[in-house]
Amino acid sequence: MISDVVKDEMRAIVGDEWFLDAPEDLVTYSYDGYLPEFMPDAVIIPGHRDEIAEVMKVANRERVHIIPRGAGTNICGSSVARKGGIILAFHRLNRIVEIDAESMCAVVQPGVVNADLQKAAAAFSLMYPPDPASMFVSTIGGNVALNAGGPRGVKYGVTRDYLLGLEVVLPTGDIIRTGGKTLKNVSGYDLTRLMCGSEGTLGIFTEIILRLVPLAPAKATLQAVYADLDDAATTVSAIIGAGIVPATLELIDRTVLNIIGNYGGARFSDEAQALLLIEVDGEESLVEAQGKRIETFCRERGAFQVEMAGTPEEAERLWQARRTAFGAVASLRPNCIVEDATVPVRMLPAIIRKIVEIADKYDLQIGVLAHAGDGNLHPLIMTDLRDKEEMARVDQALAELVQAAMEMGGTLSGEHGIGIAKDRFMTMEFSQTSIDLMRGIKRVFDPNNILNPGSFL
Amino acid sequence: MISDVVKDEMRAIVGDEWFLDAPEDLVTYSYDGYLPEFMPDAVIIPGHRDEIAEVMKVANRERVHIIPRGAGTNICGSSVARKGGIILAFHRLNRIVEIDAESMCAVVQPGVVNADLQKAAAAFSLMYPPDPASMFVSTIGGNVALNAGGPRGVKYGVTRDYLLGLEVVLPTGDIIRTGGKTLKNVSGYDLTRLMCGSEGTLGIFTEIILRLVPLAPAKATLQAVYADLDDAATTVSAIIGAGIVPATLELIDRTVLNIIGNYGGARFSDEAQALLLIEVDGEESLVEAQGKRIETFCRERGAFQVEMAGTPEEAERLWQARRTAFGAVASLRPNCIVEDATVPVRMLPAIIRKIVEIADKYDLQIGVLAHAGDGNLHPLIMTDLRDKEEMARVDQALAELVQAAMEMGGTLSGEHGIGIAKDRFMTMEFSQTSIDLMRGIKRVFDPNNILNPGSFL
Repeated sequence: MISDVVKDEMRAIVGDEWFLDAPEDLVTYSYDGYLPEFMPDAVIIPGHRDEIAEVMKVANRERVHIIPRGAGTNICGSSVARKGGIILAFHRLNRIVEIDAESMCAVVQPGVVNADLQKAAAAFSLMYPPDPASMFVSTIGGNVALNAGGPRGVKYGVTRDYLLGLEVVLPTGDIIRTGGKTLKNVSGYDLTRLMCGSEGTLGIFTEIILRLVPLAPAKATLQAVYADLDDAATTVSAIIGAGIVPATLELIDRTVLNIIGNYGGARFSDEAQALLLIEVDGEESLVEAQGKRIETFCRERGAFQVEMAGTPEEAERLWQARRTAFGAVASLRPNCIVEDATVPVRMLPAIIRKIVEIADKYDLQIGVLAHAGDGNLHPLIMTDLRDKEEMARVDQALAELVQAAMEMGGTLSGEHGIGIAKDRFMTMEFSQTSIDLMRGIKRVFDPNNILNPGSFL
Repeated sequence: MISDVVKDEMRAIVGDEWFLDAPEDLVTYSYDGYLPEFMPDAVIIPGHRDEIAEVMKVANRERVHIIPRGAGTNICGSSVARKGGIILAFHRLNRIVEIDAESMCAVVQPGVVNADLQKAAAAFSLMYPPDPASMFVSTIGGNVALNAGGPRGVKYGVTRDYLLGLEVVLPTGDIIRTGGKTLKNVSGYDLTRLMCGSEGTLGIFTEIILRLVPLAPAKATLQAVYADLDDAATTVSAIIGAGIVPATLELIDRTVLNIIGNYGGARFSDEAQALLLIEVDGEESLVEAQGKRIETFCRERGAFQVEMAGTPEEAERLWQARRTAFGAVASLRPNCIVEDATVPVRMLPAIIRKIVEIADKYDLQIGVLAHAGDGNLHPLIMTDLRDKEEMARVDQALAELVQAAMEMGGTLSGEHGIGIAKDRFMTMEFSQTSIDLMRGIKRVFDPNNILNPGSFL
């Protein structure tokens, strides 16, 4: 519990309006995209970097936990007050400070919504590539904290690849700047990338500099439906093997296709076992040629239905199955756990087979979405958190799935983070020495362990 | 000084043949691409990871400095025994372990020469993009330690962007693995990128996993000569503003052009003030179209001579001026100091003007090469280290140049590193708080400060 004296001191820093501690105000901040609830002691919505620094000085002195939180869309539970404390929210720090088109970068505050930055960049014929599914809600600060990915990752990479610099308030209240507007920077240890993906445990971002790239002038969107999952996987290998790097290369399995159909989305014939959604972007002539080559690859490798969009509306229609997938699956049972284990691209067919096996073994409904081009899988486990017996099976299935990914040379998380969802699996990927190094780094930045102490370490 | 007992203990680990301490064997390891000499106490050339771990355990116990060193081509002095100690060399660990074409990655030992990896990847129609000027000599281990860049950086980025995972022997002798063969990985703190660019101060890389990309099937090479430096700079902006990302976009100034001509290289007319060397790569039709657009941009913006290579031989001829530049400049005076300050792309013309001004002010010969597409400048200061009076002017000029880059939002180093060449400038870019964080990280990995302790921290 935080004393009233400390609360009042913090309240005075940000102003009464921006310090919330009425129970009805706190409930919204008690959960994020991951499910369990933890009621915070208060919520602070600062309006300026210096207010954050002042709050942190008090918090550090009084050993009060502070949990930075963007839109709370992360699904690993890295933005909740697991051990109590105060949520720091960034609604008011939502300004795009500058689009520097000539230097190909943007300077933004942490509360800027991803899609708003994309739109602002597009006005300069530029693009901010990372496109997490949450992009219309999630904020750049959260994207950096989680190193967010998205369907465009196969061609464009993830948030880390666009992060050039940061202004950071440290847990001690000190402010540092890392990196800058230069496209290259090798001075000193790479604190910028160390912050990226640190899940709000090392510092609070108050300004973010991001690299932009030219907006692709054209794109082609294709959908291919297969009666055999392996044929879809072979097509993925064929496309990549031909030296084509699509902007998007998504796979949907039969379970998810059925659910989409029943949900009122696109319907596929009974023989459909897998769908590929493929998008290439770039110069018009190139896109056209690549689209045709991909169409041929799909047919040659057994797709019984291939469509290439001729208009933006048709492209949107082809995307519709993928876009409704989460909603459809989530509607089926009370809860849906989205896994994120990632394997080397070559192991994609093997891990999908393993998932089917695990679903059978534990008698669970598991659908598969995959960013197939980069081996980043999203098994969707449909379940009910209140059903203890089923949840025990879910836990076993999760552990077995993660273990299988590890044995294939994979990682616990491709883009969703560890948080409280997977901290129990950390020792599967990391030796005690590695974990000790991470804890040592945490102590250097946060000697009193006050910044998001409930998260993965 | 290291006692004979400790030397013998280390000698026994690697075998007599691979432990050198005769003065004539040490001299080769007493300097690197940066000039001052520091004689090491010994050189160890290990044949296996476990030997390195054993050596480190002894070194850590006895507080013996160990300095990892690839080919020693770095020009910041990060691979010399500034405070005495033992050089660790990697000639024997030079195996390409695997090219996993399907997963688009390579696994290599640290002593693999960059160009050898490029060649091995090309056999699978794949490419390892980072291309430091030293690529025919420098090793991947050194490239990772320095986060090496190169002319292709403007399109393809630097070593960091291709580093997927590492096996690392820590200063304590413990061995950890970071990352892996997956293209995405957000599990835990990003130890992989923290190692990248750490200049041999945090750990010794014994295995390196690198991302590969499809080899571009075609390229176009252009050379444009200008009577006005500003026109060349405007062309750079025009190309980037048009959404074209060349693979290479190099600028050479008049001083360097003259020297190349006198050295027996390509000759340019007296009115030549700047040269752009531009290369685009990708699908054949795209490359052809982009080449023509760039040719037009160059002419419209005042280039009085534009050539586009029609054959690989012609392309090689156009590259010749750029390739001979360092040799030509280096031959002119006893020493050549290669600066590496980097600015946001927009500030390129301003920083070049500043360099000309500084050369005048301090009566020095400074030529300019620039990776113009990413704002990474290489001012070449021709001088004589033995001339104390001139060196005092060089020092002042360097400080003023770095200061100017800082004021333009730049960084101390775009791709060459800090080492002992620029450690005195660290406080220009970093606050004491940031430097303390870096020192804290160093202590976590290397509590006894035995690994390359003479370098930038």
